Amino acid sequence: METGIRIDYTNTLDSIDTDQMEAARDRIIEAQRLLHSGAGPGSDFLGWRDLPEKARESLHTVTEVAARIREMADVLIVVGIGGSYLGARAVIEALRSPFETEGTTVLFAGHHIDGGYLRGLLESCADRRVCVNVISKSGTTTEPALAFRVLRRWMEERYGADEAARRIFATTDAQHGALRRLADEKGYTTFEIPDDVGGRFSVLTPVGLLPIAVSGIDVGALLDGAASMRTIAVKDDADSNPALRYAMLRDALYRQGLSTEILASFHPCLAYVTEWWKQLFGESEGKDGKGIFPAAVTNTTDLHSMGQYIQDGERRLFETFLHAEHAVSDMTVPGADDNTDELDYLVGRTFSEVNAHALDGTARAHRGGGVPNATILLPDITAASLGALLYFFEYAVALSGYALGVNPFDQPGVEEYKKNMFALLAKPGHEKRREELLAQSGDNRNNIAG
Amino acid sequence: METGIRIDYTNTLDSIDTDQMEAARDRIIEAQRLLHSGAGPGSDFLGWRDLPEKARESLHTVTEVAARIREMADVLIVVGIGGSYLGARAVIEALRSPFETEGTTVLFAGHHIDGGYLRGLLESCADRRVCVNVISKSGTTTEPALAFRVLRRWMEERYGADEAARRIFATTDAQHGALRRLADEKGYTTFEIPDDVGGRFSVLTPVGLLPIAVSGIDVGALLDGAASMRTIAVKDDADSNPALRYAMLRDALYRQGLSTEILASFHPCLAYVTEWWKQLFGESEGKDGKGIFPAAVTNTTDLHSMGQYIQDGERRLFETFLHAEHAVSDMTVPGADDNTDELDYLVGRTFSEVNAHALDGTARAHRGGGVPNATILLPDITAASLGALLYFFEYAVALSGYALGVNPFDQPGVEEYKKNMFALLAKPGHEKRREELLAQSGDNRNNIAG
Repeated sequence: METGIRIDYTNTLDSIDTDQMEAARDRIIEAQRLLHSGAGPGSDFLGWRDLPEKARESLHTVTEVAARIREMADVLIVVGIGGSYLGARAVIEALRSPFETEGTTVLFAGHHIDGGYLRGLLESCADRRVCVNVISKSGTTTEPALAFRVLRRWMEERYGADEAARRIFATTDAQHGALRRLADEKGYTTFEIPDDVGGRFSVLTPVGLLPIAVSGIDVGALLDGAASMRTIAVKDDADSNPALRYAMLRDALYRQGLSTEILASFHPCLAYVTEWWKQLFGESEGKDGKGIFPAAVTNTTDLHSMGQYIQDGERRLFETFLHAEHAVSDMTVPGADDNTDELDYLVGRTFSEVNAHALDGTARAHRGGGVPNATILLPDITAASLGALLYFFEYAVALSGYALGVNPFDQPGVEEYKKNMFALLAKPGHEKRREELLAQSGDNRNNIAG
Repeated sequence: METGIRIDYTNTLDSIDTDQMEAARDRIIEAQRLLHSGAGPGSDFLGWRDLPEKARESLHTVTEVAARIREMADVLIVVGIGGSYLGARAVIEALRSPFETEGTTVLFAGHHIDGGYLRGLLESCADRRVCVNVISKSGTTTEPALAFRVLRRWMEERYGADEAARRIFATTDAQHGALRRLADEKGYTTFEIPDDVGGRFSVLTPVGLLPIAVSGIDVGALLDGAASMRTIAVKDDADSNPALRYAMLRDALYRQGLSTEILASFHPCLAYVTEWWKQLFGESEGKDGKGIFPAAVTNTTDLHSMGQYIQDGERRLFETFLHAEHAVSDMTVPGADDNTDELDYLVGRTFSEVNAHALDGTARAHRGGGVPNATILLPDITAASLGALLYFFEYAVALSGYALGVNPFDQPGVEEYKKNMFALLAKPGHEKRREELLAQSGDNRNNIAG
């Protein structure tokens, strides 16, 4: 099977010699063996590997329910945070134009604690038909639980209890947790979050697939793309397997002290793909005092913002470009009655062609400035290519995490702020930490300037 | 005058001892003297210092033209990139709800090379009345020039040459450059970009003020806020001057090897303020192999994404939180007929209160994880507070750049990719580099995996 995804690593070859590349290959191949054996840390969370095929089991139900939602709603409000938010948003924003108004619009809530935002969202829905998809394994994560508490009441007041229950869809644990209990009690249509798939790896479960399907995207093609990449990613040949090569490059560069990776997309519609990537890589690798810091830019926009730093700033960076070789929608540079803007040399050429040369020029300039870089080449920005890309990144981060010696499938650090927040909010059961924190506070007035 | 902006640096005190703070103070005070003397590098670009007062000269014209645009257009398309884009977008997104549909909508173009985006934008404007504000010092920067070439033709075909000229507004050099020549020839209404203000410092010139005013924001209040901050920022007392304190903290932490700063806003509406900050700081400091790498997150969203890395990853980070103490629009946690979601302990409290405790909990957790952090406290998110914040950052980065020993007002590295791009696109005058680059290319097929 072909995914068309390739990685060009010409601009890393100044920085990685043959021995370093071989050593990286050995480490990544060892990581791959660990991943395939299922004996590495976090092995309870390897379900993502099989999703390209396994998700087909629920595909029919997902597309059927999505069609029902598209019929009865102008807006689907998706309530979720982290992995229950970024995957769907990444795919939807990549494939739907920001100017598109046809069909059902997917809006997001519960991904922060902003009352003004939620108020505005509800006001904007006053004259539109609404469905809600609440996504939470437990049902008690503060941000989505708060938003859903508001939304549930709003839906019940607007539609009455029965019709509200028909319009609310819960994606949650198969058996346990607060949202499962509530959904069963109210009779919501539900979808299951598999036990062996972590949040940031869940885009190919109903967590991602339902909102993506509602927005009119072909989720079957998304899975096909992922399946194609799977057959390639499991190979142990770095020349034909771009995921293996990508993990090797990252490994070699990080060991040279290049501790920040910039994922630089040349397509604004991929901005949330880079956000999803930041969670996937940051949360999988960033632990035990280790890990590559993931940053993202969108070009050429950010060449006029972060470009100066990347070209000339502190040299701890490497860069991964993301570029689609064929544009689904494009424009041609028109003639003008004068050449005041000095652009006549581009007349008749497409924006894509100019953009591709901007990428090439940037990659060479940054390499010259001491920033090794590779380019992930997508054939186009379609559901199939995106499916392949998502799986490519998931597979590569698993290899990277194992080669780094961490558990790529846990996220213990995410709990710390929550424990403090619960204590500060006086949540029952958190009295001890509350006392400690309040004692810490003391009088800080002297540490405030202004 | 009061701006209400303060900085709480309690969570840096584990990391910066008294001697280090004193040494940082000395360096920053020295930088302040250099800034005030006007004798430092880049002294031709110090005009931003006086903008809070000086911009008043053009305020009447700006608001008058903005009112005219609001009357004749449903959409203002702002064409610009870098500093001719981010300032206006930052202020508009901070103060206008994403769900607001009243008044004139500001859309952006020319900030990248995406033909599909531009096509979608034009299609979405088919039934709406349109004005265009093209912003470029030279008129030949590729991205905005390309978009404007398309837009100019579109406007002329739609409205005819005369009416198009009445609907196009050019913000450009007072005398020189391609856009100035075109604007004079066509009779566009024009605004001037001062010679002594660099792009990233231009938000308080008509570059930012005109689009901001068109979106219905009180630009007088924005300037008032900036003016208030100015009177504070020029003081040499770190206890009453938050800009001085912020520059001191950054200086002290960077010298300890903490080379990445994360600006972490707790308000999604400030996402583009953090983008603007990334350009301001990255482009001002990132040169000569030096500078703090600027990254941004929006919380609590990204606590479920980048939070793990920040808590537990490689320890080269410090963090600056951005928090508004009073919400202009808010919501109260409602009761429910059950407590399945375990949120009853929050009933009757505002989202803002919960959000504030999330910030406090996060700041303590990250400090505990080895990430020193300070919090910039805004009184609220209004035009006046934002004006003060923008000036606060501009002033602080000037001090930071001088203390680092760089010219904070140039951006020589931005040219490199352009030169390559022109050569690769075969732009006349770039033949020599083109030959060099093509010779470099050779046959790279062996450096592509997949």
